Amino acid sequence: MSDKKIVGKQSIAFQNPPVITGYASIVGKKEGEGPLGSYFDRIDEDALFGGDNWEDAESRLQKMTAELAIQKAMLKPDDIRYIFAGDLLGQLIATSFGIVDLKIPLFGVYGACSTMGESMSLGSVLVDGGYADHVVAMTSSHNASAEKQFRFPLEYGAQRPLAATWTVTGSGAVVISSCDKADAVKNDDAIIEIKGITTGKIMDYGVKDSMNMGACMAPAACEVIAQNLTDFKLSPAYYDKIITGDLGVVGQKILIDLLMEKGFDISHNHMDCGIEIYNADTQDTHAGGSGCGCSASTLCSYIMKKMQSKEWKKVLFVPTGALLSTVSFNEGNSVPGIAHGVMLEVRS
Amino acid sequence: MSDKKIVGKQSIAFQNPPVITGYASIVGKKEGEGPLGSYFDRIDEDALFGGDNWEDAESRLQKMTAELAIQKAMLKPDDIRYIFAGDLLGQLIATSFGIVDLKIPLFGVYGACSTMGESMSLGSVLVDGGYADHVVAMTSSHNASAEKQFRFPLEYGAQRPLAATWTVTGSGAVVISSCDKADAVKNDDAIIEIKGITTGKIMDYGVKDSMNMGACMAPAACEVIAQNLTDFKLSPAYYDKIITGDLGVVGQKILIDLLMEKGFDISHNHMDCGIEIYNADTQDTHAGGSGCGCSASTLCSYIMKKMQSKEWKKVLFVPTGALLSTVSFNEGNSVPGIAHGVMLEVRS
Repeated sequence: MSDKKIVGKQSIAFQNPPVITGYASIVGKKEGEGPLGSYFDRIDEDALFGGDNWEDAESRLQKMTAELAIQKAMLKPDDIRYIFAGDLLGQLIATSFGIVDLKIPLFGVYGACSTMGESMSLGSVLVDGGYADHVVAMTSSHNASAEKQFRFPLEYGAQRPLAATWTVTGSGAVVISSCDKADAVKNDDAIIEIKGITTGKIMDYGVKDSMNMGACMAPAACEVIAQNLTDFKLSPAYYDKIITGDLGVVGQKILIDLLMEKGFDISHNHMDCGIEIYNADTQDTHAGGSGCGCSASTLCSYIMKKMQSKEWKKVLFVPTGALLSTVSFNEGNSVPGIAHGVMLEVRS
Repeated sequence: MSDKKIVGKQSIAFQNPPVITGYASIVGKKEGEGPLGSYFDRIDEDALFGGDNWEDAESRLQKMTAELAIQKAMLKPDDIRYIFAGDLLGQLIATSFGIVDLKIPLFGVYGACSTMGESMSLGSVLVDGGYADHVVAMTSSHNASAEKQFRFPLEYGAQRPLAATWTVTGSGAVVISSCDKADAVKNDDAIIEIKGITTGKIMDYGVKDSMNMGACMAPAACEVIAQNLTDFKLSPAYYDKIITGDLGVVGQKILIDLLMEKGFDISHNHMDCGIEIYNADTQDTHAGGSGCGCSASTLCSYIMKKMQSKEWKKVLFVPTGALLSTVSFNEGNSVPGIAHGVMLEVRS
């Protein structure tokens, strides 16, 4: 690893790698019934999370998840210098109404379903640079608020094609702390560091099918993964896992093919959170899970636990986002993609 | 000024204050006819900016403004390490479709009309910390796309109460460069440094009137200004101007009163971009201008020119945002506010 902060064309290597001192995941009933069910901190049977409507539900979900992550880091909200958060809803209302009571200075971010990668990237920079001791990076999605926002109200019972994904009801939050403030990590747990980031550009291959988001996002994931490997002069085998957010089975195949064309074979160590989070055969989720909460809740459960047990020591976490709105889609625009790469490593 | 980066509860003091090496403002016809008309770089008579619809118009506006700022900094898009950008539209589509062709790694941000403060804050941190030589911070709003997004299509001819503001059609972009890369600044121009930032929390006083955004945002502006003065141990008179984004005449009065209650008198040096940008008597804009583009285009024209002529040497720039969506509003929620403070100073 270089001793310079600025690495290659799009990457940063942290000189004082920040540490994840707390993480939490809270999901809905369907996610709890999926293959990762036993890894989540909390599964709520009530799709409204005690709220009055779907947006309120998602706000409550974000608040609970942030509070749990801060608590698991053995900190109080007052110890958190900044929160980096966003969601899929117009004007980020799940975040605005969710975290207002925490009274933490907010940087609102939007990267569609890549938001967890963006919030972790910016949060890590502020911690590495000595601008904050502790920050929270988080995001969420809710199946019902997202369907209402992007597609059809659930009550319509609209049919979904096989390339479509299922928006995850879930939230994930991490507390990122400076390396000298990592005493909150319990002695028996491995210490997970954020070694670097690779920031994505918007990639537009002209795909216009909002029911095939995997195809829309795969070029962006390909660009960020290839750039990470190039910037740091690594081969794919450096990582135990290269983990995308929500490409699903259609997008995964495209990603592996696109990277093969660039000379990178990730077919042996690629994993996609959207494929892992549901059992497609029994849960009727078609191509997989999606939404900001898909990669965020999978990171803050399954991935962190695999790393804490040292089964995986080096992970490139690449949440993937599809940049569309109902307005842009109905005006005939394509669906561009963006992805943000975060390098997670177990401290040796 | 302290020699520590972390100052007080919510502020950062930059150790290597980044420099604004380029800035650009492009606005619509109505803004060009206002009191600041002669300060803008470009006034476009075509409300569609050559585009097919209002969203496309705003995307084209962002792209033109970013390109002009980069050109005025004597740089190429390839020299820009990151772009920090966002807008008011759902899922930030003005930004996504506006800057895709620039092929610059993107951090999408959302702070409603405080977005210029947020993008400049984060961009400055990355430059100060040595993570980037040059970044672009920008935002935009468009009257027609915003009215369609938040209120009624223009064609309805809806009546507006006197507390309402008029969304600015305009965009502002700055190039923020590391202090040792500021050779792009022409010799005869003053060098404008970003000395520090104060990051806002969401403030919710329970105001539910989306036609009185000034009242919604004033508490957030008050909180950030008071915190900036407290964190840096300054009196309001330290600044030649304390400039909010788009409080308008109603919000300005509330802000001055709220700060007076906290013991800070800003009545002599407060300015609000929303009040300056239109002539309320002749332009039928009621309480003033608003929108992300209001503070951004005023910064990148009038404010920068007043600073380059050294008439103003110290400015606290505080874009203000109202966090609402049609969904949250129709569900009966209040309209919380947020604001982000940026300390601009002429290098002595």
